[in-house]
Amino acid sequence: MTRFKLIVPDSYLGMIIIDEARIFEIIKEKSPVSVSLNGPDGILPRVQETAVRISEEFGIPAYVLADTTWGTCDLNTNGSKVLGADIQFNIGHTINTESPENGVVLIDAFDDVEFDAVAAKCVKMLEKATVSLVTDSQHLRQVDRVREILEGGGLVVKIGSGKGQLNDGQVFGCEFYPATALKEEVDAYVFLGQSNFHAAGVALATNRPTYVLDPYFNEVREITEFAQKLKKKATLAVCKAAEAKSFGVIVGLKEGQLSKVFALRIKKELEDAGKKVQLFALTDITNERLQNLRGIEAFVQVACPRISTDNRFDVPVLSTPQAKALLKMMRGESIEGYLEIPHWL
Amino acid sequence: MTRFKLIVPDSYLGMIIIDEARIFEIIKEKSPVSVSLNGPDGILPRVQETAVRISEEFGIPAYVLADTTWGTCDLNTNGSKVLGADIQFNIGHTINTESPENGVVLIDAFDDVEFDAVAAKCVKMLEKATVSLVTDSQHLRQVDRVREILEGGGLVVKIGSGKGQLNDGQVFGCEFYPATALKEEVDAYVFLGQSNFHAAGVALATNRPTYVLDPYFNEVREITEFAQKLKKKATLAVCKAAEAKSFGVIVGLKEGQLSKVFALRIKKELEDAGKKVQLFALTDITNERLQNLRGIEAFVQVACPRISTDNRFDVPVLSTPQAKALLKMMRGESIEGYLEIPHWL
Repeated sequence: MTRFKLIVPDSYLGMIIIDEARIFEIIKEKSPVSVSLNGPDGILPRVQETAVRISEEFGIPAYVLADTTWGTCDLNTNGSKVLGADIQFNIGHTINTESPENGVVLIDAFDDVEFDAVAAKCVKMLEKATVSLVTDSQHLRQVDRVREILEGGGLVVKIGSGKGQLNDGQVFGCEFYPATALKEEVDAYVFLGQSNFHAAGVALATNRPTYVLDPYFNEVREITEFAQKLKKKATLAVCKAAEAKSFGVIVGLKEGQLSKVFALRIKKELEDAGKKVQLFALTDITNERLQNLRGIEAFVQVACPRISTDNRFDVPVLSTPQAKALLKMMRGESIEGYLEIPHWL
Repeated sequence: MTRFKLIVPDSYLGMIIIDEARIFEIIKEKSPVSVSLNGPDGILPRVQETAVRISEEFGIPAYVLADTTWGTCDLNTNGSKVLGADIQFNIGHTINTESPENGVVLIDAFDDVEFDAVAAKCVKMLEKATVSLVTDSQHLRQVDRVREILEGGGLVVKIGSGKGQLNDGQVFGCEFYPATALKEEVDAYVFLGQSNFHAAGVALATNRPTYVLDPYFNEVREITEFAQKLKKKATLAVCKAAEAKSFGVIVGLKEGQLSKVFALRIKKELEDAGKKVQLFALTDITNERLQNLRGIEAFVQVACPRISTDNRFDVPVLSTPQAKALLKMMRGESIEGYLEIPHWL
């Protein structure tokens, strides 16, 4: 699976700063017998270094849990439990709340790269526009500095308020409250960082021009057209699924992706519409795993919406908002704006 | 991961018979609110059919748990727990004991294909040899019939006794007691079925000529040379690892593959020999996941030995027997016969 994979130039890793002081403090306080650490694929080498320092300092096993952890929906606390680690440090998924569960501690990881040069480019490119700044957890600390530069250059800058797990200006791949809230007030969105993935989500959820301020490539790139292609692909999948007679409804097994109730509801609605439905469960929903199954013309997966929008599958695999659009389509209703919602669930 | 993937001709599936009567009986008796079913990739289409029949008969959700289940070491009971299914039916991993855990029931799946024609070919090919019949769980019922044909043709046939989870004549990918027990008494091993994977394990664990009796291709093929290539590759990995200065020791997170104690022991032994060692944990150990990690010249994984022998990795990834051989090699001892053991742990 490559969907969430960042382009990580070698220089990037040097800029990642993990809040090790907090980790060390917690270990000193709790004296665990062993700990586990995990983080997004792109920063795993930094996580390894932190694990080595923990072992050297405290003489305890520090396991790097090297499975994927796509977000706070996918912390892999089960992996840590299996290891019997007393504390799990999940690194790089900053949210605005405390630890989600006993034994797991969310640790900040910031990317210390400077945006000054690329922000200056943005000033020239978007002159005098009203923009909203958004970013992922790694670049939250740079928002104020970029705001200063853009405002200094004559742009009007607005930062949407945090909601749920999100801080002000922060977006997830599936949740966009600080962006969608300002939709009527801005000309465009400006995403700080390298993630086309997050920026495309903003573009889709707001249907507004969206730009990526990439400090590594030192370029401002518009992501709007790329997002439109994702939307077209998603809508084609909905249309194709409307013709299917046999469906598979897939429940995701990752801890924060379990939506069994919605899965059973969509099963019933599809059956009421005369479709045959089988139930499946998967940890990682990939085309390769689905190829083992037979006789299914379209799938609905209620795990992570981005699995559907950002991957290729042999048959339609609809996310929750796509499945809701499908039900509307089958009732002859308009599906206009089905992705323009703050949370893709 | 393709290592355990069988070649599954379309005709194969038609021959797979799941013990549905037992499943239905248990559901009638226990009246679960929902159930889950899983099985090896190759028989998932049959498992789907059983799930559909359960839903029709009892009107309850029957989830097909479509993650891998490589064996009784990898039942994915956690997946079933996450779903909240009252009973999990794991299909196709026949062993000689009762359910491994409360809530999980092992259900037989037999491949009803006929071996008569291919057994007659074997009689001609191995004339008058003394052979041992071995097979995987799917073909246990055909052992007696093939024995009859081979003995009728003048061969001497021996069936090794079951041990641990294994029935008489049965082998796993990592456990070979019924084969190794007869090593000094037979000229060759004859494996019933299509699995080069299992047959190669027998060849490696016994160092004897090994043949596959493939009823689908209607051919007798010798697997000895293929097994020797796997062995050469495994030994080269050990030699290459001997030169490594930095090691990663990987604990497998699958329920029957957790060997944390051995992982910590091998870590200590490598450190005593002057190596740097980092600890990792992974559910699926693949080259792709390991590529996220930096600065490791060789890995030791204590999850499933076949991961190391049957896959390609950028750096050496040693299994438990290979790691033991490495430690011997580093002490200047002979590693002769390091795979010729009944259980690769």
